[in-house]
Amino acid sequence: MEAPTLYLIPVTLGDTAVEKVIPAFNTTILSGLKFFIVENIRSARRFMKRCAPSMDIDALTFFELNKHTDKERIGSYLLPMRDGENMGVLSEAGCPAVADPGADVVAIAQQKGYKVVPLVGPSSILMAVMASGFNGQSFAFHGYLPIDTNERAKRLKQLEARSYNEDQTQLFIETPFRNRKLAEDILMHCKPQTRLCIAMNISCEDEQIVTKTIQAWKGKLPEMHKKPCVFLLYKAP
Amino acid sequence: MEAPTLYLIPVTLGDTAVEKVIPAFNTTILSGLKFFIVENIRSARRFMKRCAPSMDIDALTFFELNKHTDKERIGSYLLPMRDGENMGVLSEAGCPAVADPGADVVAIAQQKGYKVVPLVGPSSILMAVMASGFNGQSFAFHGYLPIDTNERAKRLKQLEARSYNEDQTQLFIETPFRNRKLAEDILMHCKPQTRLCIAMNISCEDEQIVTKTIQAWKGKLPEMHKKPCVFLLYKAP
Repeated sequence: MEAPTLYLIPVTLGDTAVEKVIPAFNTTILSGLKFFIVENIRSARRFMKRCAPSMDIDALTFFELNKHTDKERIGSYLLPMRDGENMGVLSEAGCPAVADPGADVVAIAQQKGYKVVPLVGPSSILMAVMASGFNGQSFAFHGYLPIDTNERAKRLKQLEARSYNEDQTQLFIETPFRNRKLAEDILMHCKPQTRLCIAMNISCEDEQIVTKTIQAWKGKLPEMHKKPCVFLLYKAP
Repeated sequence: MEAPTLYLIPVTLGDTAVEKVIPAFNTTILSGLKFFIVENIRSARRFMKRCAPSMDIDALTFFELNKHTDKERIGSYLLPMRDGENMGVLSEAGCPAVADPGADVVAIAQQKGYKVVPLVGPSSILMAVMASGFNGQSFAFHGYLPIDTNERAKRLKQLEARSYNEDQTQLFIETPFRNRKLAEDILMHCKPQTRLCIAMNISCEDEQIVTKTIQAWKGKLPEMHKKPCVFLLYKAP
């Protein structure tokens, strides 16, 4: 018997059509699974209905893994694999285990020696690197920046310095309703000649991925309230 | 008329079936383009034949962009866009502008204010982060490490330290025929309790993505000669 496999199954970002961002193969894998670890059960079920409409979703078993989950319980989520069952991990948007709690269950699966197979799908981080025009040979994703004003200013300057000293693209994100504030902080604290890419609503209808210098962005920030954004900083051309 | 668009079009890693890793939408976009900037014309044509067999490939215009290309000429590759034509960028494997020279032409397109649209496809870097079980909230890709023995040792220790001090996953790659040497250098210079993920032949038939401590890898390195690998370092559990 083949070793049980943990499949990491990307979902669409927003309401994008499945065939726009998900390879056909993923549906085949998804349809064959009975046990899932998901960030949010409701959104996972909704995605499955769109992706594999013939699946009997009520016959599936879901374990919820998000920031509210007791870390001690995560190991038990993989018990079906001990009995030889394959399992799937789905996050709320994009690729599981990148900027979401899925990595914890992958770490346990690796520790137990299970096979882990990542499937292809949309990653706003990687797609932002591609479209920014910044260095794709060296880049770092930092998740969320500090909220405290002084700490944030310090962090922004540190990341900007790293883009110069290490020739490295710097990426970070923000809770969508705070995007505007973060963008203003970047314009305030970074050098005029440094470049900023704002990658908004990636893979969705109104996607907009635009790179300008800090100077050129001033007074011209787009409307980005509640729109998922990735921010990228990189040294002057 | 809509602004001309530069599409960033991922290709398969190795001989993987197109439908395994490429969304159907990409073929629709690809089929509608006449002008391409590609890392290698022969491999781009081969991918197009597999992906969109009905395309009249001989009627297409290709510009080659790789490490041999004169940087001064890259801007002229985008001239068809001045006339309103959409264009596509394809690298030899995976996602364009990530760990390949495509980023130069994207930077120029951004400068000229053209629309840049990244499509979904396989990225060995992102898929390695997903399957490693390491921190996906903070990770850095560094491309190739120095070849000089002392410099490499220093760099490995620096990256290992960063995985502890910044809680950041560290990724790097090597020319496939030197994989074994790099793996041995990692085992020699990193702490026994530090974790190493070797992600090999991602999305291909014999894919193997395995995380162990340095200690546990000793004497047990897999056969990886000429197999494309991503290496990931992360602090002890």
